[in-house]
Amino acid sequence: MNPRGIHHIGHAVDDLPGAVERYQRLLGARVEHRETVPEQGVAAVALRVGDSLIELLAPLEEDTPVGRFLAKRGPGMHHVAYLVDDIDGALADARAAGAELIDERPRVGLFGLRVAFVHPDGVDGVLVEFVQESENGAAHE
Amino acid sequence: MNPRGIHHIGHAVDDLPGAVERYQRLLGARVEHRETVPEQGVAAVALRVGDSLIELLAPLEEDTPVGRFLAKRGPGMHHVAYLVDDIDGALADARAAGAELIDERPRVGLFGLRVAFVHPDGVDGVLVEFVQESENGAAHE
Repeated sequence: MNPRGIHHIGHAVDDLPGAVERYQRLLGARVEHRETVPEQGVAAVALRVGDSLIELLAPLEEDTPVGRFLAKRGPGMHHVAYLVDDIDGALADARAAGAELIDERPRVGLFGLRVAFVHPDGVDGVLVEFVQESENGAAHE
Repeated sequence: MNPRGIHHIGHAVDDLPGAVERYQRLLGARVEHRETVPEQGVAAVALRVGDSLIELLAPLEEDTPVGRFLAKRGPGMHHVAYLVDDIDGALADARAAGAELIDERPRVGLFGLRVAFVHPDGVDGVLVEFVQESENGAAHE
């Protein structure tokens, strides 16, 4: 499994509008997606940087995955998402490599993408996400 | 200043050979550079993922920047490096945006690249690096 590249870097932030403004000013980055997902307890903004995205994630409540991350570690990098052509194959390869999968099967993530997460304990402390764009590419509009 | 993309993501690790093996197995990533820089107290391995690199950083001693990071936070993502065409312009723009610069002027970083770091306090907890490849592109061999 050789990813095509870095799809996005997820960042946990506690001030989403402020962080968006800072990224726009610091990097000239353009907002590409905005989405609020109450069932995941998160508001997200994705900004374009070349072929990759900076995904800013703010918790809707404290007792959510991003809320707990912020309480424990403060704002900062949260996960790395790799773009793969075959997410089922990527998960099978990760399992064979001894990684612990958070998602045994791909699920629908932010912005309608097919995603699956790998536990940080087997990847030197880094929460890794695999992302497959839809077969016709439409999910990434 | 609009970066061309993510040049690399720096990861702090405490077991460099093990981490290299895990990234090779998990991502099929190919080692592109290896460098040990005693004056920066770090051993580094860069692995290719599409147009970006995963930079694995292990401290040579505890009392080094990466050693102190590991002692405080454990292994994980350490910094994000953006590839820019004009690093002097990127630093001027960052200064104008109110960011606190760690390097007021570009310096030579790992693998001979021109680099400069921006303090995480002004970028929502993320240590940001700007990277400019040499004018003839040779530094990125």
